[in-house]
Order: sequence, then C-alpha cells, then structure tokens
Amino acid sequence: MHRTKVRIVEDALDAHNTIARANREDFDRAGVAVVNLMSSPGAGKTALLERALAGLAEDGLRAGVLEGDVEGSLDSDRLAGLHISVTQLNTGNGFGGECHLDANMVRSALGALPLAELDLLIIENVGNLVCPAEFHVGADARIMVCSVTEGEDKPLNYPLMFRACELVVINKIDLLPHLDYDIDRLEINIDQVNPEATTMRVSARTGEGVDAFREWLIGVPARVRATA
Amino acid sequence: MHRTKVRIVEDALDAHNTIARANREDFDRAGVAVVNLMSSPGAGKTALLERALAGLAEDGLRAGVLEGDVEGSLDSDRLAGLHISVTQLNTGNGFGGECHLDANMVRSALGALPLAELDLLIIENVGNLVCPAEFHVGADARIMVCSVTEGEDKPLNYPLMFRACELVVINKIDLLPHLDYDIDRLEINIDQVNPEATTMRVSARTGEGVDAFREWLIGVPARVRATA
Repeated sequence: MHRTKVRIVEDALDAHNTIARANREDFDRAGVAVVNLMSSPGAGKTALLERALAGLAEDGLRAGVLEGDVEGSLDSDRLAGLHISVTQLNTGNGFGGECHLDANMVRSALGALPLAELDLLIIENVGNLVCPAEFHVGADARIMVCSVTEGEDKPLNYPLMFRACELVVINKIDLLPHLDYDIDRLEINIDQVNPEATTMRVSARTGEGVDAFREWLIGVPARVRATA
Repeated sequence: MHRTKVRIVEDALDAHNTIARANREDFDRAGVAVVNLMSSPGAGKTALLERALAGLAEDGLRAGVLEGDVEGSLDSDRLAGLHISVTQLNTGNGFGGECHLDANMVRSALGALPLAELDLLIIENVGNLVCPAEFHVGADARIMVCSVTEGEDKPLNYPLMFRACELVVINKIDLLPHLDYDIDRLEINIDQVNPEATTMRVSARTGEGVDAFREWLIGVPARVRATA
C-alpha cells in the first residue's frame, strides 16, 4: 500500500511537470522570460516589486505580474499603480485554497495574460516556504525573498526552498540595527544548503540595494535567450 | 470526475478528523490539555515559548512541547535549556516533507510523548499560514503568532488561519517604532475575519506582554476541564 501511495505521488508530480513544460513552451513561443518569486508571508515580495518594477517600461522592459494569493487581491491592488499588467490568480477560487501555485493553476491563467505584450512575467507565489519550492510552474528562474526578521536559521529549517532558488534576496536590512541578527550567519547558512545561490541585501522600504535586484531582473530575458 | 475529486478530498478529511478525535481522546484520558501553535516561518513561535515556558514547573504546570519541523531540530535545541520535555517531529521523515502537521503525524509521535508527566502539551506546528489551519491534530486550543513585520494585511490574505485560532499573539512589538505599521489596523483586520479572537501584543525579545500570554497558557488546562 505504501508503494501504491508513492506511485500515485510520483505520477501526480510527473503530470505537474508535464504541464509545467507546456507552460514553459508557451512562454518561450511568446518570447516571455518568467520568474517564480517566493517567500514566507510578509517577507516583502510585493513591496520589492513595487520598488523594482517602477519605471521598467522606460528602461525598455515590458514586465507583468501574475499575482498568486489564497484569497483577495490586496497585492494586485498595490501593484496597480505601476501601470503594468497585473493578473490575479486565487488558489481559493476553484483550487481548494492551495498553499502554493502549481503548473495547472498557472496554465488556467494563461488566457488572461497579455503574453504578446510582455518581455518578463513575474509570478508572485503564495507566501509559503515549503510547497511552492516543490512545484514547477514553467518559470525560467526562481527567486526567494528572505526577511532579516525571520531568523538566521531559516535556510536550515526550510532547505528545499533555499536550494530551489538561483537568487536569494535578503530584505528589510533597514531593520538590522534594531535586531539581534547576524546577517553573515544567514549567508553562511544559505551557502551551506545552496552554494550556487546569488544573494543580495536590500531594503524594499528605503530602496537600498534594490537597483542590483532590478538589474538582475532586467537581465533575465537575455540570460534565458543565451541558454535557449 | 470533479465530484469524485471532491468526494476523495472529503473522505480524506473525514479520516484525518477521525484520527484527530482519537488523539484528543488519548490526550483527555491522560489529563493533558493540548495547544496547537501556528504562524508564518520566523514569526517567533519558538522565541515566545522560550520566554513563556521558563519556570512554568515552579508555577505548578508541567508543560511539554512537540516540535514540528520539515527538517532539523534547531528549535528543539533552543528549547532544551528550559528543562521541559521536547519531542521532535519532522515531516521530512516519512511524511513527504509536508508543510504542516496532521493528526496522523501527531499520532505517530504519541508513543514518544511522556503524557503521564504533562499537564499541557504545546504542539509547535510547521511555519506556514495556510495548511496548518486546515488540519485538526486533536488540540483543545489553537493559537497563532503574527509578527508586526509581516504587514497589517495578513488576516485578509490568510483568513482561514486567523479564523481557526482563539488567540492571536501579535509579536515583535519592540520593532514598532522602526516600522511603517498600523497595529490598530491589524486588529481591525483580525476583527473583520474573526471577531471572537482574543489578541495580545507581545515582544518575545524584550518580554513585554509575555506574562499575559503565560497566564493564558496556564489557564488552558482548567478551561479544558471546565468544558469537558
């Protein structure tokens, strides 16, 4: 019976990966580079996007956001002021209130996305350090935001998420003077579970370090083309 | 087919609830009151327990912790200094790295828990604002910790968690002077999704407000007996 359970789980993951590949092919065909942005609830994904995506169109990059939430559209509303394409995807709406986005949910939103008008699509996942790392959605790159308010131990407690990402954005560094927090220890812990990861220290609130993140994002489409 | 899927999900939840009831009966039989403690990753559950459980034995309450994590035992190690019973339960160990504890996982740990020696068992769930709220484990009370670094909108984005809990502990209030954060707005948002919830403002770091939380915990066994 245990083997049957494993088999079913493997089959389900295979099916998910097949759909993720189909998403990726559709994104590639449309010439859109796609980033899967993940974090704990409240680590600052939306605040970071508010800062980083402002004025991107003037820099020649047409960016859009697929905003994943269990319920509501508060984050989409926050991004509306950026005058970019924002599409809401709620897991509470026909997907059982799932704690993550999966390839099938993203696929269901494809028709609503103006792919022909975009160079870069950022998929803001549901705030969760576990399951979003387990489900491919068809993205070219995976980024996580890690807030310095969450403790230096998070890479060790949630290693899969830190391993899944090419870039770890360490956010809320403006709070460091007010915390008992060893940011070097965090980077050592990240290095322990994912030595390949790039890290950046930013404050979405003050803007410190956000330019580097912005440049990284702007470079995604070219990097995707280079590896195609 | 959709109806079949709903049926399977409902059957699975029924099975979970049956196991949760069995857990609860075992806890009741042993005279142990049980609290399910939930939050986002890094909201401060462990830090709060470090503060609140220190010296409880001198107050006549024998407390123990069942520590849920995907991997590792860092939080258990932190609690070891309290000289209370701490039992580690990893979802990465035979449970597929689940993002939450469920009744079956807790049941698997029952044999390792010194129930006869305890008045109060605190189950520290995996850090996650979604799935832990969906799974009963057999607890008498549910508490969530909500950090002021996470944003006032969390009750609206993750309403199920806030609805599931009798007590919302608002942590890290020592950081309020350094945040653009409206704590009254948070309480209004909590009230909107769960008007029955009790809220407490605390700082696990400075100890401010922790006495009230400690008193609440100490009162759990008596309240459970009163409603039995």
